[in-house]
Amino acid sequence: MKTLHDLFEETLKDIYFAEHATLKALAKMAEKADAPDLRRAFREHLEETESHVARLEEVFRLIGKTPEAKECPALKGLVEETEEAMREAQTPQVMDAALIGCAQAVEHYEMARYGTLLAWADQLELDEVMDLLEETLEQEEAADGKLSELAVGGGLDEGARFSAR
Amino acid sequence: MKTLHDLFEETLKDIYFAEHATLKALAKMAEKADAPDLRRAFREHLEETESHVARLEEVFRLIGKTPEAKECPALKGLVEETEEAMREAQTPQVMDAALIGCAQAVEHYEMARYGTLLAWADQLELDEVMDLLEETLEQEEAADGKLSELAVGGGLDEGARFSAR
Repeated sequence: MKTLHDLFEETLKDIYFAEHATLKALAKMAEKADAPDLRRAFREHLEETESHVARLEEVFRLIGKTPEAKECPALKGLVEETEEAMREAQTPQVMDAALIGCAQAVEHYEMARYGTLLAWADQLELDEVMDLLEETLEQEEAADGKLSELAVGGGLDEGARFSAR
Repeated sequence: MKTLHDLFEETLKDIYFAEHATLKALAKMAEKADAPDLRRAFREHLEETESHVARLEEVFRLIGKTPEAKECPALKGLVEETEEAMREAQTPQVMDAALIGCAQAVEHYEMARYGTLLAWADQLELDEVMDLLEETLEQEEAADGKLSELAVGGGLDEGARFSAR
């Protein structure tokens, strides 16, 4: 990688892989979630994620490249953590709390990468690309905010409470 | 994992591993960074990260547990991406831009996990634990903000600019 353009393109391939992996993960998470609100939130974000993939394909087109995915070890690790949590959760309450936490970790990865791509697109003067990246970034932030609300409002097991004192 | 308490403890072990891995990664990133401001930012955040480890040990103590790390696949993936970027960057400008992006991805993972732990500590009514987690979360957010400033203000290679049109 010799130029910021090369770096932008490599990171685009990374997030393109990440969004595809997120599609698969969200489908599983929607199946495993217990609370109807949470299931709905995952399904809605799955539809949004399809639009993120389409927007990335448009970005590839705008920079004159064919869409290509590059294995993203971070997202693979996040999916591994999510699968582990799904195996280990033994009550619906713990499952939902764990799924929300894992989904927020995925959202945060994507927010970081879109934020970085946006800063680089600005330096590369790619105005149309910036609009597309910004639209997706806003949706990731909104999805994260919605999950925070569900985490706080979630009907967590009262029996799970304990005091540290 | 049957209770929110179990989940809190497992996630605490995950972030305890993550903070230790971040210490090692930041030391390497400070060595590789070209811009003096960026080197300084990495070294300062390394010192802060030492205080995050100490705070986590205090949280373990407050919940009556011995500090323990549990392998965190997400952080391992993030470190793998950072090492790949360090190998592939061929100019100081690309190296610095890539390092900032990778560091922000690490910060975002930690922000997500601390945010989740904070929500759970609230539900578990762990007031002292909340104060400690909040202090670290604020430092992670400040570190991320500082990196965003460096990304925007960074002396990126003018030759790297290109137009998509």
